[in-house]
Amino acid sequence: MIDGATRLFGIVGDPIAHVKAPTTLTRLFAARGINAVMVPIQVSAAGFDAFMAGVKATLNLDGLIITVPHKEAVFRHVARPSPRAQRVGSIDVIRRDPDGAFAGDVTDGLGLLGALRAAGFEPPGRTALVVGCDGVGAAIAGALIEAGASRVVVSDADADKVTARAARLGAQTGTADPRGYDLVVNATPLGLRPDDPLPLDATVLTASQFVGEVNTLPEMTPLLVAAQARGCRFATGPQMVEAQSTMVADFVTAHMARSVRDSREA
Amino acid sequence: MIDGATRLFGIVGDPIAHVKAPTTLTRLFAARGINAVMVPIQVSAAGFDAFMAGVKATLNLDGLIITVPHKEAVFRHVARPSPRAQRVGSIDVIRRDPDGAFAGDVTDGLGLLGALRAAGFEPPGRTALVVGCDGVGAAIAGALIEAGASRVVVSDADADKVTARAARLGAQTGTADPRGYDLVVNATPLGLRPDDPLPLDATVLTASQFVGEVNTLPEMTPLLVAAQARGCRFATGPQMVEAQSTMVADFVTAHMARSVRDSREA
Repeated sequence: MIDGATRLFGIVGDPIAHVKAPTTLTRLFAARGINAVMVPIQVSAAGFDAFMAGVKATLNLDGLIITVPHKEAVFRHVARPSPRAQRVGSIDVIRRDPDGAFAGDVTDGLGLLGALRAAGFEPPGRTALVVGCDGVGAAIAGALIEAGASRVVVSDADADKVTARAARLGAQTGTADPRGYDLVVNATPLGLRPDDPLPLDATVLTASQFVGEVNTLPEMTPLLVAAQARGCRFATGPQMVEAQSTMVADFVTAHMARSVRDSREA
Repeated sequence: MIDGATRLFGIVGDPIAHVKAPTTLTRLFAARGINAVMVPIQVSAAGFDAFMAGVKATLNLDGLIITVPHKEAVFRHVARPSPRAQRVGSIDVIRRDPDGAFAGDVTDGLGLLGALRAAGFEPPGRTALVVGCDGVGAAIAGALIEAGASRVVVSDADADKVTARAARLGAQTGTADPRGYDLVVNATPLGLRPDDPLPLDATVLTASQFVGEVNTLPEMTPLLVAAQARGCRFATGPQMVEAQSTMVADFVTAHMARSVRDSREA
């Protein structure tokens, strides 16, 4: 139950109605005995800097999950990005440190990797295609490389963006043709809307391939439905979110005991 | 349960941990079948304008309860203050209208009046002393005058403020001496902290007098404990909040059906 001493966390993005984090993280806080909620916050790209000014003024808001389209824009508000976040060029979680400055990290890639491992995929020596090279795609490619994948190809309609990102990550660039990879990941928003085209040609997938998906609604996106029909093993967007929930909760509540005490003293 | 489509409302003030509105209003939304929460938001006076810039950018935040110290500062962000709010000089609730501009009203006085009526007090022909002439005190004095009280005296340590407010409200000014009034109201923050002095001399209260209190924690403030011991009837801060909850919920959810639909279409 929410009361006056409840600490605030949010997930900020646009659109926002489809995200699962408010339910997942609010439950996780309750399970840990923390009086806190995670609320959805819909902010457009144009409104993000004004929103962050408001966040800085909101003294009982301790951290945010950052989602599309803000994962790069948020860097200019984060005094302490992690080395991983700097390499990936993306931040998906921030917290207020005791001095009032924000620390940021990227957990998207680690989350999908955890979900894929649970499905039986082990990165060392494997090849992977990541379609879509916005924040989450870059995070996944970075995590696969860190975990020992032998070859990671990123593909994006924006050729300049994907070239720059691949160079920074140590990945290669290529088309969205999924043939020959051990793992194929959809990191585009395609699949959120019923009339979206598939992000890649699913008719050429084979049963030996793994498929990863970042979109959370519906859990079985058209790509995953097609992959399942062809015998692929897969990890869904909600499984990715679940796998990263614990690390997000750990990150944003790092100063929590102190914060809660401050709030009660106020 | 909070999910991605949950609409946001807040109560903004400093301090904030003592407020009851998050619990009361979140329950009321649930009882009405509305997927919405009311969260506590701690913002200092210095941070208020930056906070409001963030509110304007938060597209799924539909309204706010405004509490100390922001009830006057909020006027500069409200395009449509109610005539009542303009007369009282205070706004305690705002909502986003369909064009994106904010409408504001003042409900504090009506809330305490409702709680006092439930305790047996009827304003017509009665005299009242309101100690403390910040937003809530002015709202209560205004509501008593509107309801037909024959004489309403406001008292405040800030002589210039109380003189200007009384003139605008049609009230008189006086000391905090409670003798001779049918109703005595504490509208100062005194009573929130255990070591606060009483806002007025409770030893001269008599059993025929009513006492109203705006502070919510503890419910029985030292003033109310003293008043009860002397046989007075009284209305507590939580009773005031309860009485005004329905009108606040009505005001902030006036455009709700449309907002919820927009959110689901997004």
